[in-house]
Amino acid sequence: MAGWENYLDQNQDRFLDELLEFLCLPSISSLPEHAGDVEGAAEWCASRLQAAGLESVRVMPTGGHPAVYGEWLHAPGKPTVLIYGHFDTQPVDPLELWETPPFEPVVRNGRIYARGATDDKGNLFIPLIVAEAMLKSRGALPLNLKFLLEGQEEIGSPQMPEFMAAHKDLLACDLILSADGGQWDEEQPILTMGTRGLAAVFLEVRGPGHDLHSGIYGGTIHNPIHVLSAIIASMHDPEGRIAVEGFYDQVRDLTREEKERLASVPFDQEAYLKEIGARGLFGEPGFSTYERAWTRPTLEINGIWGGFQGEGLKTVLPSLAQAKISCRLVADQDPARITDLLLAHVEKVAPQGVEVKAVKAQTGASPYLIPSGDPGLEIAASVLKEIYGREPFRIGTGGTVPVNALFLESLGAYTVTFGFGQDDERQHSPNEFFRLSNFKRGQRAYGLLLDRLAEKYPARPAW
Amino acid sequence: MAGWENYLDQNQDRFLDELLEFLCLPSISSLPEHAGDVEGAAEWCASRLQAAGLESVRVMPTGGHPAVYGEWLHAPGKPTVLIYGHFDTQPVDPLELWETPPFEPVVRNGRIYARGATDDKGNLFIPLIVAEAMLKSRGALPLNLKFLLEGQEEIGSPQMPEFMAAHKDLLACDLILSADGGQWDEEQPILTMGTRGLAAVFLEVRGPGHDLHSGIYGGTIHNPIHVLSAIIASMHDPEGRIAVEGFYDQVRDLTREEKERLASVPFDQEAYLKEIGARGLFGEPGFSTYERAWTRPTLEINGIWGGFQGEGLKTVLPSLAQAKISCRLVADQDPARITDLLLAHVEKVAPQGVEVKAVKAQTGASPYLIPSGDPGLEIAASVLKEIYGREPFRIGTGGTVPVNALFLESLGAYTVTFGFGQDDERQHSPNEFFRLSNFKRGQRAYGLLLDRLAEKYPARPAW
Repeated sequence: MAGWENYLDQNQDRFLDELLEFLCLPSISSLPEHAGDVEGAAEWCASRLQAAGLESVRVMPTGGHPAVYGEWLHAPGKPTVLIYGHFDTQPVDPLELWETPPFEPVVRNGRIYARGATDDKGNLFIPLIVAEAMLKSRGALPLNLKFLLEGQEEIGSPQMPEFMAAHKDLLACDLILSADGGQWDEEQPILTMGTRGLAAVFLEVRGPGHDLHSGIYGGTIHNPIHVLSAIIASMHDPEGRIAVEGFYDQVRDLTREEKERLASVPFDQEAYLKEIGARGLFGEPGFSTYERAWTRPTLEINGIWGGFQGEGLKTVLPSLAQAKISCRLVADQDPARITDLLLAHVEKVAPQGVEVKAVKAQTGASPYLIPSGDPGLEIAASVLKEIYGREPFRIGTGGTVPVNALFLESLGAYTVTFGFGQDDERQHSPNEFFRLSNFKRGQRAYGLLLDRLAEKYPARPAW
Repeated sequence: MAGWENYLDQNQDRFLDELLEFLCLPSISSLPEHAGDVEGAAEWCASRLQAAGLESVRVMPTGGHPAVYGEWLHAPGKPTVLIYGHFDTQPVDPLELWETPPFEPVVRNGRIYARGATDDKGNLFIPLIVAEAMLKSRGALPLNLKFLLEGQEEIGSPQMPEFMAAHKDLLACDLILSADGGQWDEEQPILTMGTRGLAAVFLEVRGPGHDLHSGIYGGTIHNPIHVLSAIIASMHDPEGRIAVEGFYDQVRDLTREEKERLASVPFDQEAYLKEIGARGLFGEPGFSTYERAWTRPTLEINGIWGGFQGEGLKTVLPSLAQAKISCRLVADQDPARITDLLLAHVEKVAPQGVEVKAVKAQTGASPYLIPSGDPGLEIAASVLKEIYGREPFRIGTGGTVPVNALFLESLGAYTVTFGFGQDDERQHSPNEFFRLSNFKRGQRAYGLLLDRLAEKYPARPAW
């Protein structure tokens, strides 16, 4: 057993106590009244990095909730790895569904119960104590390490783009390891190849100046709901393909190898439908459900409304109908280009006689895809295989993790998600927990990974 | 001048006082707290019919607001005419917009201002005093006359179908004259040929059991809003025709003469669009705006909703999307058949994988059309021409007047609308008024009409 592993073993009780202490901090980033608690969690992280032996540790202003930075850069010729995590949490409501208070962490049946236990305090704490273990047992890390911990992930990291642009040199690295993630289950590891981006448009159709009597005027002018429905219907073909011209132009096709890897991830259709209460699958022809969810773009209407929505019948010809549209994007789609295509489509199909307005939403995020064969990814794969005894599934995430694309854009480095949560750990829900078994397994995995990266990651010239 | 005209002239001040007294009664049928006032208005009508010389006068229970009946049946061999009107009114809010209180009628600038002045107390009072004038001046009416005044027109006459079915013999007649209507303007008379019927369906599309994260699940199952929009879009062709199979099968085509008569009604497109604040006309190809509004059926979405409707973006894949659909029908469309066609259409186009439910609304009404050449209609036309000096426009009403079809179905008699309101008299709005000039002109017109009908209406065998 390596010295760092012994150190981890011998200090495990202390580390658990410290994690429980960290979990007592109600660092809910979405609630203004908890801004001081988010700040407190930042201070806690900074102290803890300092204690671990990291250098140049600081709490950094972002314009919103602060970020925390620390580094150890005494491994010349070795790669520089940036470890990312977040110390803010989701809110706790509905509070009455918690078996124990969300910010009074307890260990029950090998699980730590608390808000933030798995998302992301437990996970980010792992590389921190691994760094301490290496520094205390060896006096050095095998490579150059930076920590960037943020306090606004759960509210969409609004200040991070500007923050990263302003601190490119400080954050410069070869590879990012994101400690915000998980594994398939207790036996099966995963690697996340991509996350989808986001583009959104708000659509509005105005007909008459006010709601009209449908008897007197019905049939003589456009009904905005008809126009809106026709516009929405025109955005897909009947088979489920997106029918907006140029929409798929920038989509990178899967390689045969990528398709085969996705096909090897087990999919239980019955369980999938049962979980979401849906009657059947539907989507772009020629793709599996995982391909559709992880590697293909979507165009979804998130909301629609217009006219009378009360009980019974009101025979109005409404003045206004509205809808919210958002697209999940995949590499190499550009959110700005996609919104332009949506606007052009609406303009093309909108009839005369009504006012059709399509407005770009403020929200937008680029898709992210790490190439197969990326050295960081392959080294992580080999470590996971060693720890779990199985090849990791190479999956995608249908959701949007803006920070991945942001790191790539601002630092020119790919992110490998290397976390040890599991999907059943009630992230964002009451009774969130983190498995102690994964907490320990993650420590060994991070230690191995840092050593392997130091050994095998190709060196790059200094910046 | 005929004796009845002299009588009307000599008693005009009294009649006006009586009408003002009638207008003091706040007989708002939609407000339960005014049920006693509706009852009071019924009693007032009954007393007034009695005083006029009508016989068998009674306030009749309907299960809801009462109806009032009176008759004079001493003209053997002459036609029997039933006069229809309603003594209930709309509510008065917003009260602050009234220049004088709605139930404190005043005469200003030749207009009677009060709720119900034109709709319909002023109008229904006209034939009542004409009957009195004839009975008092001649001792007889030229034909057999029945009055049926109802107290629930403004709430859709819910008990009238059952009431009419139960009193077919009592109400039996050759022709109905509806005193609930008006003229084009002060110079131009009209005759209403038809009113549109109504059929309605509520539509619901259920996808997943609850709103889902559009990133995780988007693209793998049906989005209910997409399905609903596609169903709605499938109900019209791009040119504006209704694309529900069989929808037009029972529509009676206009004769060339009817088309020419509609074409002779002046239409000011600019004024029409300005009034409703719309940018352009749109409707079924091959028909004019009046033809579309009065003689062609419609299918309108009155309301739609589903998913997120708040500020900003919420990337949900919604569980549920709903819409309310109503159709305006024309002769000889049957509401029950049309809802069946709608349900069949929805079933045909609904995709697998979602639950699509279409439910018939309780509301429904048959369309009504009086044939050109109907003797009652033609006699009314000749009277209007004599009074106004102009041929009446033969128009339609896009709205639904269930009582017209109901009379036809239950009594086998057509209704000629013969009223003296005008569209600008703020029916249902603050500061409703009725022109004194029309009040007087209407008396002469009704007197002439009763005499002409007695003279020219073809006799039918007694019942």
